Amino acid sequence: MTLVEQVNQKRRGRRAAGEDTRAALIAAARETFVEKGYDGATVRAIAARAGVDAAMVNHWFGGKEGLFAQSVLQLPFDPAEILKRLVDGPVEEAGERIIRTFVGVWDATGGGTFAALIRSVTSQQEVANALKSFFVNAIFKNLLTEIGAEQRELRATLCATQMVGLGIVRYVVHFEPLASVDVETVVKAIGPNLQRYLTGSLD
Amino acid sequence: MTLVEQVNQKRRGRRAAGEDTRAALIAAARETFVEKGYDGATVRAIAARAGVDAAMVNHWFGGKEGLFAQSVLQLPFDPAEILKRLVDGPVEEAGERIIRTFVGVWDATGGGTFAALIRSVTSQQEVANALKSFFVNAIFKNLLTEIGAEQRELRATLCATQMVGLGIVRYVVHFEPLASVDVETVVKAIGPNLQRYLTGSLD
Repeated sequence: MTLVEQVNQKRRGRRAAGEDTRAALIAAARETFVEKGYDGATVRAIAARAGVDAAMVNHWFGGKEGLFAQSVLQLPFDPAEILKRLVDGPVEEAGERIIRTFVGVWDATGGGTFAALIRSVTSQQEVANALKSFFVNAIFKNLLTEIGAEQRELRATLCATQMVGLGIVRYVVHFEPLASVDVETVVKAIGPNLQRYLTGSLD
Repeated sequence: MTLVEQVNQKRRGRRAAGEDTRAALIAAARETFVEKGYDGATVRAIAARAGVDAAMVNHWFGGKEGLFAQSVLQLPFDPAEILKRLVDGPVEEAGERIIRTFVGVWDATGGGTFAALIRSVTSQQEVANALKSFFVNAIFKNLLTEIGAEQRELRATLCATQMVGLGIVRYVVHFEPLASVDVETVVKAIGPNLQRYLTGSLD
């Protein structure tokens, strides 16, 4: 069973009858984000289009960012969940944990979601803005706040350079051997570099 | 005067009358690479289409990779030139030199060539292959050979993750502050990470 299927099964188990609500919200969100952009799309407008109560967005997606992540970015997790996983452990291993988590998720989807994401990012500024909101702010800046790091803005964008580049080389252009080595080889190779961006000296 | 203008002026100064030959080769190369792909396009066929002798390709571009770099990738340098610049100095500063060189060149073109490159890379496998041939093999693998590094294949692709990610964040999606900080801030922030991929332990 892939990670996506596991997550979906967990959701179904929790509230099987709500699966329709969730699907309706994802469809409505995708249309609304494309029409209005990330900032212009309100939770209220998306819920109204889906014909459900706005509280369902928090219930199913933890908020607007999570809904965006799962509708437009098609990521099988929400930022709050993944952030919890990333801060759960020693700070000096955060870099390796991040690589292990993201490569694990992306490998499970065959890298297709990452490739689709990059195609949208390079052609639509709206998606780039939303990627920044999700990836840089909701994940890395929050993680850096938990860690108590200085220069959080610069560090978060440095982390983004490494994660985006890793995703492109492994899933989009498939440069070998990096495209095929196992997850732990990637973790050992790239984890320490990400760690420096999180907690090391930058000058 | 931008770096591109300097390079072009140097070229003009060297052989002003040949500028037509060079332009004809670039136009012919662009068409031939698109039609036949990188591997299928021969230097002989490109020269014939341009109506010049095949030896002109070596004279002006140092070979097929340089011609590809300057026609399809629209980079204002050829791999041999840039490699010479990168190996010229202490090994332990190679990471910083690479960042300084590439960001210097990309900043001089406003990042437009990098953005165009990434758009092609994500939509055409041919361009991805050529990028690998140029960036990973002609630059990084050759540099790693000069350095005498082990695990050259893996290290070259790790370097690619960092360089591609840097280019996307600074020139395509413009995440601040990384999109606007000066070259030396980028060099200090990212140089040591690239250095680890070149000469550090990967496990």
